[in-house]
Amino acid sequence: MTLALDPAAQDLLFREARTANTFTDEPVTEEQVQAIYDLVKYGPTAFNQTPLRVVLVRSAEARERLVKHMAEGNAAKTATAPLVAILAADNEFHEELPQLLPHFPQAKDMFFSERPVREQSAAMNAALQAAYFIIGIRAAGLAAGPMTGLDFAGVQKEFLDDDHTPLMVVNIGKPGEDAWFPRSPRLAYDDVVTTV
Amino acid sequence: MTLALDPAAQDLLFREARTANTFTDEPVTEEQVQAIYDLVKYGPTAFNQTPLRVVLVRSAEARERLVKHMAEGNAAKTATAPLVAILAADNEFHEELPQLLPHFPQAKDMFFSERPVREQSAAMNAALQAAYFIIGIRAAGLAAGPMTGLDFAGVQKEFLDDDHTPLMVVNIGKPGEDAWFPRSPRLAYDDVVTTV
Repeated sequence: MTLALDPAAQDLLFREARTANTFTDEPVTEEQVQAIYDLVKYGPTAFNQTPLRVVLVRSAEARERLVKHMAEGNAAKTATAPLVAILAADNEFHEELPQLLPHFPQAKDMFFSERPVREQSAAMNAALQAAYFIIGIRAAGLAAGPMTGLDFAGVQKEFLDDDHTPLMVVNIGKPGEDAWFPRSPRLAYDDVVTTV
Repeated sequence: MTLALDPAAQDLLFREARTANTFTDEPVTEEQVQAIYDLVKYGPTAFNQTPLRVVLVRSAEARERLVKHMAEGNAAKTATAPLVAILAADNEFHEELPQLLPHFPQAKDMFFSERPVREQSAAMNAALQAAYFIIGIRAAGLAAGPMTGLDFAGVQKEFLDDDHTPLMVVNIGKPGEDAWFPRSPRLAYDDVVTTV
């Protein structure tokens, strides 16, 4: 056993978890999303910044507004998934740094006074947090269907503002019939890892 | 039990896992890094692209070259951690797409023919994979110490090339004495999640 994580958890989070394209009708509750957040909020980021923002699209009216910005191949599953979440990066995350990094509150002004620096940091750290969120969805026994095939500018205008950059849209629910394609290949270890 | 993931795994990966600043002398073996990769390679990305590249800095000579590019507060721990990894994004990841996405090989040319598009996609998807990698380090019973306080241009020139953009450097090992600061606060659910 090289890994400390037990095999059932390995399967739940990585080995058997798959990006779902169909879902059952079973709703995803507010309690589940709160439990996911309460787990993954601990994932590490630079300076403990937490730029990730999550918009849960629950109403039929909002769902309709979202679907029209999805790429053709993503529209039907976005329309029918039990829950859909827009993940975005808050480019003004530095305002919360004094609260989030109480031992080094001056980080806000020392490192993040310029917007382009903030945008780059928010994009990277919100992506880290998006990955933790996807892992958290799986930790809840649910399948995630993350998507980047969408009109980002349209989603931003419809649901966000100039300070919030959308990263992806994620369908969430119990997998339905024929929920996924066969697993695609992965790169071999030696194609990814080198040693110096 | 709202989450399907058992509490011990929740603790190992998120609740009790911490960014370590000191480490024991116990080596991190090649077998451990292979087991980590073999787990986290399954984490989802857009179009199954896998831009993440990992440079394991194992030799004393290479470690010395890396340490000189680290910020003052990160140099000592980077010099002494059992293993240090440079995580980078391969901006030419599209070359592997026909292999990684056999049911849609034309994605390579349809979506990723332009370098700026590739750089943006590589940055975001390599960050997702970096988060999976950090989770994988924890799954191996090890502590990760991810750092962005470093001279990125210097690390790129020293260890990479124009096609590979460094994302972070990660110290890896068993936590040592006084390995971490008290846990910093996290944002409340309602500060992060909204519903429409």
